[in-house]
Amino acid sequence: MPLFAGYTYFRPQMKFKLQATDTNSKARAGEITTDHGVIQTPIFMPVGTAGTVKGVHFNELRSAINAQIILGNTYHLYLRPGLETIHRAGGLHKFIGWDRPILTDSGGYQVYSLSDIRKIKEEGAEFRSHIDGSKHQFTPENVIDTQRKIGADIMMAFDECTPYPCEYDYAKKSLAMTHRWLDRCISRYRETHGLYGYSQTLFPIVQGSTYKDLRKQSAEYIAEKGMEGNAIGGLSVGEPDEDMYEMTELVCDILPKDKPRYLMGVGTPANILEGISLGVDMFDCVMPTRNARNGMLFTTQGIINIRNEKFKNDFSPIDAGGACDLVRTHTKAYLRHLMHSGEMLGAMISSVNNLSFYLWLVGEARQHILAGDFAAWKKETLARVMTRL
Amino acid sequence: MPLFAGYTYFRPQMKFKLQATDTNSKARAGEITTDHGVIQTPIFMPVGTAGTVKGVHFNELRSAINAQIILGNTYHLYLRPGLETIHRAGGLHKFIGWDRPILTDSGGYQVYSLSDIRKIKEEGAEFRSHIDGSKHQFTPENVIDTQRKIGADIMMAFDECTPYPCEYDYAKKSLAMTHRWLDRCISRYRETHGLYGYSQTLFPIVQGSTYKDLRKQSAEYIAEKGMEGNAIGGLSVGEPDEDMYEMTELVCDILPKDKPRYLMGVGTPANILEGISLGVDMFDCVMPTRNARNGMLFTTQGIINIRNEKFKNDFSPIDAGGACDLVRTHTKAYLRHLMHSGEMLGAMISSVNNLSFYLWLVGEARQHILAGDFAAWKKETLARVMTRL
Repeated sequence: MPLFAGYTYFRPQMKFKLQATDTNSKARAGEITTDHGVIQTPIFMPVGTAGTVKGVHFNELRSAINAQIILGNTYHLYLRPGLETIHRAGGLHKFIGWDRPILTDSGGYQVYSLSDIRKIKEEGAEFRSHIDGSKHQFTPENVIDTQRKIGADIMMAFDECTPYPCEYDYAKKSLAMTHRWLDRCISRYRETHGLYGYSQTLFPIVQGSTYKDLRKQSAEYIAEKGMEGNAIGGLSVGEPDEDMYEMTELVCDILPKDKPRYLMGVGTPANILEGISLGVDMFDCVMPTRNARNGMLFTTQGIINIRNEKFKNDFSPIDAGGACDLVRTHTKAYLRHLMHSGEMLGAMISSVNNLSFYLWLVGEARQHILAGDFAAWKKETLARVMTRL
Repeated sequence: MPLFAGYTYFRPQMKFKLQATDTNSKARAGEITTDHGVIQTPIFMPVGTAGTVKGVHFNELRSAINAQIILGNTYHLYLRPGLETIHRAGGLHKFIGWDRPILTDSGGYQVYSLSDIRKIKEEGAEFRSHIDGSKHQFTPENVIDTQRKIGADIMMAFDECTPYPCEYDYAKKSLAMTHRWLDRCISRYRETHGLYGYSQTLFPIVQGSTYKDLRKQSAEYIAEKGMEGNAIGGLSVGEPDEDMYEMTELVCDILPKDKPRYLMGVGTPANILEGISLGVDMFDCVMPTRNARNGMLFTTQGIINIRNEKFKNDFSPIDAGGACDLVRTHTKAYLRHLMHSGEMLGAMISSVNNLSFYLWLVGEARQHILAGDFAAWKKETLARVMTRL
């Protein structure tokens, strides 16, 4: 079907509209338009690893949390349920019942961090499944094919995410390969088209560890590709926050202003507000859901370890100023009881709480960028929300 | 405050209105009025052991499931969070955030089945907590005091639930003690009053194992107490269904018609429809939620093991004729994937599915009793919903 393929290939891609830039920082407010709807930036993207944001119903993501886009992990989805099932379902959106945008990573990060045995070669990465030990290979080409089958609105290039610390020579060689892999990803991306009648875009990823010259070189390489959006990878992997911020700033200053910037795997509320002030538009992190399951709650008043004895008879709401009914009505004492009793509902309420906090945080940031008082708001808010109560 | 105490004690208790009796069976439709609202019978009561129906949000219980009353387990709540916390919260309703009726059991069943060491004496039952090994004693009197502090709309008498099989002599002696305990429970109940400004009622429990003469004797003893509702205990503990039905029928024929009858811990959809046809008005069971967590789903079309390979690429709704959005929109293939991946959302969706099925089942039963075609509906429905798909 060459005509149809051509039509799909040339149809309008993702659009980004820069709406405002802060005068006292590099913070930006914008709007990304995809075939599955609009994303108002800066945005946090809840992580839905295996096609589910852990412990959260989709109607909660839509209403209580107001997620505008979620993530899926290519590594997990490729292994289970597998591409055939997702393809036969008509793509991930239909499989999971989510009609807003989805971003998928390339699977590289999980190959390096989760799989049992891996070999990284020029061709790609060989690994064994952490589920059943079966042998697989990810290449720049097949990772694009996989993301076509998954059907994410935003696909990510296949890269090597270097660990921290990382020897300069290794980082340099790895970066060169990541750039060669990027070219192969882009070629495959341009040769193929979306399978489900809507467009997909591809974000390249800046690497370079914590080395300024490598980060500069990578950002310039990525910038000249002219893709619809760009990502910064290889940060939030154990380096000091100062390094993360320094690299982020350096890279943001090179990446084009008229394209969204995505800082991968970041982070704490402080990391996110700092990232926003450096010009980042998109974030994702497992922290809100993972910490929720351990009883660490982010609230508009500060950070709470809900398992703490002092909440035993605290019948105040989980977060009186919180963004959703659930956390304005259930009490700290009740949530503490659920966590101590190992009840699922504890993790469920905590997960909604933390995600609704993260989405509230970036939503407020956006409002204050648009209103022109982001810097003052950020200072006051950071001090409050990072206080341990 | 003798005046206030008197007012509370003498204020209107729970009311039961018998609305219809089936002509071809003993099935009844009625309405129980409590200070926390009306319960339309026959009814199934989801089990909220430790103050939470496992894996289910309260807004789902209210809307998707349409639960009219839930259960709490006195044994669990007494141990954790403990009576002080519940009392300081203003009772269990306020602690958990549920404003519809609650029924609590007496804790006896869990003492026998869960606690590490127990001694049953005339005074009461001594046991060690399954959580921390601490030593406790439940007596007929302190179990009423405990349920006063929990604040259930319907409290249950402290009894010994005999195991199956049970020697006649043991069952007979146990029954005599259960009756003496009942008298102590009723005395304490009459000496005390609700602590939170609404009325509480106390249901006695018929025991007698599978012995007709003991069941008859017990039902007569309980009937003459003239309480606002009555329960049948000691069934669904391993005996054949025929024995359960025989005992239930015998007891229902003796218990007063103008009071609701509660068959404790029952059961499968078939057990419930049979119980309804014998004149039972209220049911509870962990089956819908426990089986949900194992992937066994009740649907309007039959029983499904959702983990089965054959659902891998089955993109039809979990239950196209189901009572809530969640099961009409999510697919079998997606739910299977969640269960195989060990994702919380699998248990969450399955639990809502099974509970909404159970509430649909008793709701339909009620409509058909009122419409006069219960027997025909029951026959057709049983065959369908008990089919293994």
